[in-house]
Amino acid sequence: MFGVTILGNNSALPAYDRHPTAQVVTLNDQLFLIDCGEGTQMQIARYRIKRSKIHHIFISHLHGDHYFGLIGLITSMGLLGREQELHLYATAGLQDIIKLQLEVAATTLPFPLIFHPLDKEGILVDTPKFSVECFSTEHRIACWGFIIREKKKPRKIDKERVVQYEIPAAFYERLKDGEDYETKGGELIKNEMVTIPNKPPRSYAFCADTRYLESIAEKTKGVNVLYHETTYLKELEERAQARFHATTVQAATIALKAGVERLLIGHFSSKYENLDAFKNEAREVFPNTDLAIEGVTYRV
Amino acid sequence: MFGVTILGNNSALPAYDRHPTAQVVTLNDQLFLIDCGEGTQMQIARYRIKRSKIHHIFISHLHGDHYFGLIGLITSMGLLGREQELHLYATAGLQDIIKLQLEVAATTLPFPLIFHPLDKEGILVDTPKFSVECFSTEHRIACWGFIIREKKKPRKIDKERVVQYEIPAAFYERLKDGEDYETKGGELIKNEMVTIPNKPPRSYAFCADTRYLESIAEKTKGVNVLYHETTYLKELEERAQARFHATTVQAATIALKAGVERLLIGHFSSKYENLDAFKNEAREVFPNTDLAIEGVTYRV
Repeated sequence: MFGVTILGNNSALPAYDRHPTAQVVTLNDQLFLIDCGEGTQMQIARYRIKRSKIHHIFISHLHGDHYFGLIGLITSMGLLGREQELHLYATAGLQDIIKLQLEVAATTLPFPLIFHPLDKEGILVDTPKFSVECFSTEHRIACWGFIIREKKKPRKIDKERVVQYEIPAAFYERLKDGEDYETKGGELIKNEMVTIPNKPPRSYAFCADTRYLESIAEKTKGVNVLYHETTYLKELEERAQARFHATTVQAATIALKAGVERLLIGHFSSKYENLDAFKNEAREVFPNTDLAIEGVTYRV
Repeated sequence: MFGVTILGNNSALPAYDRHPTAQVVTLNDQLFLIDCGEGTQMQIARYRIKRSKIHHIFISHLHGDHYFGLIGLITSMGLLGREQELHLYATAGLQDIIKLQLEVAATTLPFPLIFHPLDKEGILVDTPKFSVECFSTEHRIACWGFIIREKKKPRKIDKERVVQYEIPAAFYERLKDGEDYETKGGELIKNEMVTIPNKPPRSYAFCADTRYLESIAEKTKGVNVLYHETTYLKELEERAQARFHATTVQAATIALKAGVERLLIGHFSSKYENLDAFKNEAREVFPNTDLAIEGVTYRV
């Protein structure tokens, strides 16, 4: 399972029961929280997200609608007796804020909170099964997008063929990694003859808050699902530019240039109660676009 | 109109769609916000509280469930173009936190935010029509209760009598203040003969988070409505004591000793889904007790 669940899809001012930015990415048994606007812990409870499975939190930037809910979530995790490590990735300034907030409350967290300051593009998390990287976007203050990528998955053993060629079970792990097998008699069994390719690895890019920035299409090239903000409809392109935000058409253009499969749009301005025009405008440029709706999980 | 609207009645961990502490006190054309847990700005929108009428915010203490929503509310007020002064009363440490949070976002508020550090008991706001004072409670960290008092209201002119006694209109204001009138002929018209007493001034006390503390009954003596926390039912008195919280019976005992008209109880632990037992236990000691229910306005 690889999917993203939307917890908040609104821009700075909460409106129409839409919440500020927060998303949970599920990748098999891992949950990644991306951004954590005010009320995220309530949204996590509402949509029955398992807090204990969150080990990594990524904060795109230090505008409040992307992190004001973080300290509440962290504090609650502490009250619930969490002991597992929690890794937090954000611009350096956030560490001082959290430190002060814990100090004034005379609170010591019962779990290790490990802060990773974001200061350059690159890999943040690298495990055998997945990686997370960050890239710069263009916003009024330092702002980071994130890409979560599955690693290439091992090939699957063709159970009939390995028996037929009498390959010992001890060699199966190396077969999964793509190695050929040489029999005692010196015969070479090509890997493709005894294994089946696994599903190709998939990837999700979260482009945070940003102006239209063509380099984002390069950086997110070929991801399966791209989330791009659309604070405004296309008619407000000038305002979007002035406020370091993007429009429907701009987000769809990035998706098109990046050659992604699917575009999710969100971070809607409180100006708009009805969101149909967002979907329609984006789909004119990039048909496979969906609105990021709170409570919905989109498959990556 | 003098009343208190409950925006949040739960203790630290949000649960059962109950929110952390926040209350709005309405006194004629003034709104006072007391505490501001996470999500308060959403609750303010939900219950159609007019943000622009809030000029004073009082924060009892720096546990997150009493202030994590403050920075979001303040930031939103700024985004909405507020220009009026906002007075904030809280333990000193909060000022640094807000300063840092505005700095990292490169945000300058468009209105004056005037911070008043709480460091001793006494009057915080004093106007001809009302006053607000703070008093210490006994909690794990410095914690303040607040009392909002109407000032004594001027007496009302008895329109028939003032004409009958030929008192000039220029003297009416002094009559309202209780002065007697002396006619040109030297006759003394006692004030009570030409004026009617106004309604007695009323008062509301918010006792924040606290252990059972008898001095609170002294400090809140004779207020009309007393809000006292009841984190736990009476059977958990030991736990309440250990965690610097109070039980139903303890809150009701304070109300009884203080001789108040009405008791409101809240700050319920997330242990409890159903709140009936809170009401029942408190009423056994102090019959005129009500649960502080979110969205309900209780008349003072």
